[in-house]
Amino acid sequence: MYNVAILSRDSALYSALLEAAQLPHLKLVLVSNKATAFDYSQVDILFGDPDLTSNVIKQCTRLKWLQSTWAGNAALFALDKTDYQLCGVKDVFQQAMQEYVFAYLLYFSRNVAGFNQAQLKKTWAAPSYQSLAGKTLGIMGVGNIGQAVAKMAKHFSMKTRGYTRTSGDCEFIDQYYTPNDPQTFATELDYLVCLLPQSDATTGIIDHAFLSYLPKHCVLINAGRGTTIVDRALMDALQSKTLHAAVLDVFEQEPLPEDHPYWQLDNLYVTQHTAAESMPEDIFPLFSDNYFRYINGAALHNVLDFAKGY
Amino acid sequence: MYNVAILSRDSALYSALLEAAQLPHLKLVLVSNKATAFDYSQVDILFGDPDLTSNVIKQCTRLKWLQSTWAGNAALFALDKTDYQLCGVKDVFQQAMQEYVFAYLLYFSRNVAGFNQAQLKKTWAAPSYQSLAGKTLGIMGVGNIGQAVAKMAKHFSMKTRGYTRTSGDCEFIDQYYTPNDPQTFATELDYLVCLLPQSDATTGIIDHAFLSYLPKHCVLINAGRGTTIVDRALMDALQSKTLHAAVLDVFEQEPLPEDHPYWQLDNLYVTQHTAAESMPEDIFPLFSDNYFRYINGAALHNVLDFAKGY
Repeated sequence: MYNVAILSRDSALYSALLEAAQLPHLKLVLVSNKATAFDYSQVDILFGDPDLTSNVIKQCTRLKWLQSTWAGNAALFALDKTDYQLCGVKDVFQQAMQEYVFAYLLYFSRNVAGFNQAQLKKTWAAPSYQSLAGKTLGIMGVGNIGQAVAKMAKHFSMKTRGYTRTSGDCEFIDQYYTPNDPQTFATELDYLVCLLPQSDATTGIIDHAFLSYLPKHCVLINAGRGTTIVDRALMDALQSKTLHAAVLDVFEQEPLPEDHPYWQLDNLYVTQHTAAESMPEDIFPLFSDNYFRYINGAALHNVLDFAKGY
Repeated sequence: MYNVAILSRDSALYSALLEAAQLPHLKLVLVSNKATAFDYSQVDILFGDPDLTSNVIKQCTRLKWLQSTWAGNAALFALDKTDYQLCGVKDVFQQAMQEYVFAYLLYFSRNVAGFNQAQLKKTWAAPSYQSLAGKTLGIMGVGNIGQAVAKMAKHFSMKTRGYTRTSGDCEFIDQYYTPNDPQTFATELDYLVCLLPQSDATTGIIDHAFLSYLPKHCVLINAGRGTTIVDRALMDALQSKTLHAAVLDVFEQEPLPEDHPYWQLDNLYVTQHTAAESMPEDIFPLFSDNYFRYINGAALHNVLDFAKGY
């Protein structure tokens, strides 16, 4: 038997899905929605939210495998414990992220707010708007989610630029750029979507200099991690209108503190880390599939690299 | 030489494009942005807006061909003059209509207005929202524009229903329905996009009965013609919340009169017949291509049928 502990805000849902799945040789030893006191030394397999599991993982002395429920695992990478397999989640966020990104790209390009204002004035004079066709979308972080965003951009006849450390071969990216040349990447972007994970290499890279390379009409969407952006630099760009607008789903501190100036800028749109949420119905099959692999000694899917941090 | 008259609100742009194109055997006899007094009996070819040309076409006694600049040609079909070739515009509105429709589908599904409201309250509690994936989109009018909308719906993993008089074979429509069975079509629609042209068969078909078949959470977008909707019925459905919201780009009377109650409903969104506008840069190539066909005696493209009215 393998001792499994569930530690997740959605632990009730996950344990119900686990019951229903009737996985063989599995003994559920803990179901909790917080890092509760428990004898973790008996746990073989952890299934849970990265921040909660990071609080107890050092007590998991015989842990073999941790299946994370989220895309962002910085809390686990920050620890020096690396004697287990950490598996992330992939291929479940693409659709949600496509919808989030294109909801806002179309909101700005079709000027939905401007049309709403015109309606209040009961005027037949239409505000200006643009087509996405032929516009250039920059995508920072061209993993599976970034590639899905690029694919949708092509459905809307956009031009696409990818910004990545690793050279890429995604057919939906017209041109790749490396962090060595942020200026060439940023120049002429009509829209910029940042999907970069949290790491030393990405912290603070959207700074004063980087923002100064973007055209004034550019709209920036950050749905990666909040640490990528230097808040003061973005505030300055938005207040001085050297950037048209920003949509932020992620922040250095979450929840975003009530006194944070981001809440009040009229060309900044806040969402609550909801761009591409983990839905237990989508995540559980990843655990189940990997569990069968695990008990059969097969290679697990989505194993993360402690050295790279993703 | 062929005598060509341009009658369009964009006549200046069209005549500039015509000059630049240097079409052979062409004599430009009139460039006007209104139906001005002129000896129209000398005109071989008319190029213009359907409403403006409809005011002078009976004087065009030797007219052979009229290239319309718009998709809606009801003003010309209403006349008994049919001794000329009337050519419409096709394949230029798909991208704009896809953007318009999906701007609003995503605006509602991702609850952009709700997130904007949450931001004003500085709350980290996110409003509810939905994915388009798995939702059902009904499309009334499955011509080339409707098919483009269906194709984009498939890119967002939606289910699609087509409502059309002619049986269809578009690969992006899951199921076709005829006007004989509006109830089966309308039941279970999460979103409804109406793209029907103006004709006797379409006038008033979105009436009290039809609207009563739609689920309460359904959002209706009309970007076809205003006459398709019975205004009083739609007002009732929106006010009684038996329909979640409507987005109207077209109206029985345009400009929409200032005292029309549509302006003031908070679950009705007005746009000013801008969903898919004719852009002279996109329309002129259709004229140019057809002109070469005409002078070479080849069959014209996009010839409309006076009997069918489209």
